[in-house]
Amino acid sequence: MAKPSHREKILTEGLRVVHERGFAGASVRDIVQAAGVPQGSFTNHFASKEAFGLEILEIYHARGRAVAQATLLNDALPPLKRLEEWVDTVILRMVEHGMRKGCLIGNLTAETSEHSEPIRMRLVEMFSEATRAIAYCLRAAVQAGELPASLDCDEMAGFIFSSLQGANLMAKAQRSSVPLQRFRNILFTAVLR
Amino acid sequence: MAKPSHREKILTEGLRVVHERGFAGASVRDIVQAAGVPQGSFTNHFASKEAFGLEILEIYHARGRAVAQATLLNDALPPLKRLEEWVDTVILRMVEHGMRKGCLIGNLTAETSEHSEPIRMRLVEMFSEATRAIAYCLRAAVQAGELPASLDCDEMAGFIFSSLQGANLMAKAQRSSVPLQRFRNILFTAVLR
Repeated sequence: MAKPSHREKILTEGLRVVHERGFAGASVRDIVQAAGVPQGSFTNHFASKEAFGLEILEIYHARGRAVAQATLLNDALPPLKRLEEWVDTVILRMVEHGMRKGCLIGNLTAETSEHSEPIRMRLVEMFSEATRAIAYCLRAAVQAGELPASLDCDEMAGFIFSSLQGANLMAKAQRSSVPLQRFRNILFTAVLR
Repeated sequence: MAKPSHREKILTEGLRVVHERGFAGASVRDIVQAAGVPQGSFTNHFASKEAFGLEILEIYHARGRAVAQATLLNDALPPLKRLEEWVDTVILRMVEHGMRKGCLIGNLTAETSEHSEPIRMRLVEMFSEATRAIAYCLRAAVQAGELPASLDCDEMAGFIFSSLQGANLMAKAQRSSVPLQRFRNILFTAVLR
């Protein structure tokens, strides 16, 4: 197997460091130190910290997209079961980090969307893609008779996605999965009755 | 009226700058420049940037507490009406900033809770205080027969607060009040049926 290039190391370790410390909180020096590469290789590979930020965001988002494809968009499973598996997988990913990191997409929204228009616009597209996947799953649940035909699937999908982002944020502050479990319980017992 | 002291100017302008640019994104230099005071007066008045961060968080939180007292905790109004007024006031405050700033408490959770244990612990207390105020209002609604007696008011209060934080975050990314209006509509038509 080929050794990872400096560029790959910067992306892998840089994603980790930004996820832990925030985008402004992780300096280029922090990133190259974590990657174990010379400082100059950052500027060799990335036109700006913003360009680097957009690339790590794509890597993170691709993982989320893979989860959505295995769950929300997976026509082989009953629709509400898919939604449950999606929520459970998101919760599990937060638990794996001891709830300390939160969602990189949510973090960058809070911190960076006001500084970088390209990052903000990409974040909006990512929210939109996730919301569409949830709406697809909800429409399948309506068609399967698992949810009432009167449900506005697009509106509910937006509500579910933003509420999960909020639960992530609380879980990060409290370093506890309680807000995420609460979101799950109320979603399936009170919201989607 | 006495002229504001350097300390007051640093707090007032510093809160604004941190709310706009983030805690790591707003340097001490940015803060003193915005306040129009000499750089040295920051260190004269604050032991650290963290100590300053805790003080602006208290100022911001006091505004939120005043809103809760006028709405959620205001026994003169019918309970669900209070909850509606609280949600509407929070939305209005976001709209006033063109949805660009988000909630300072949510922003600091995303960005700073992993860097500063005193800030993280204070954020958790603030969430807890807000959630207790919502639960107080929900219990009054149950007693007034506006909500079913089976409602777990503490759990629902936590869900409402975290879901509103998530809607704030989406509104900030999209620079649109749509996620907040959606939260409001689904809360009162689907969640609290």
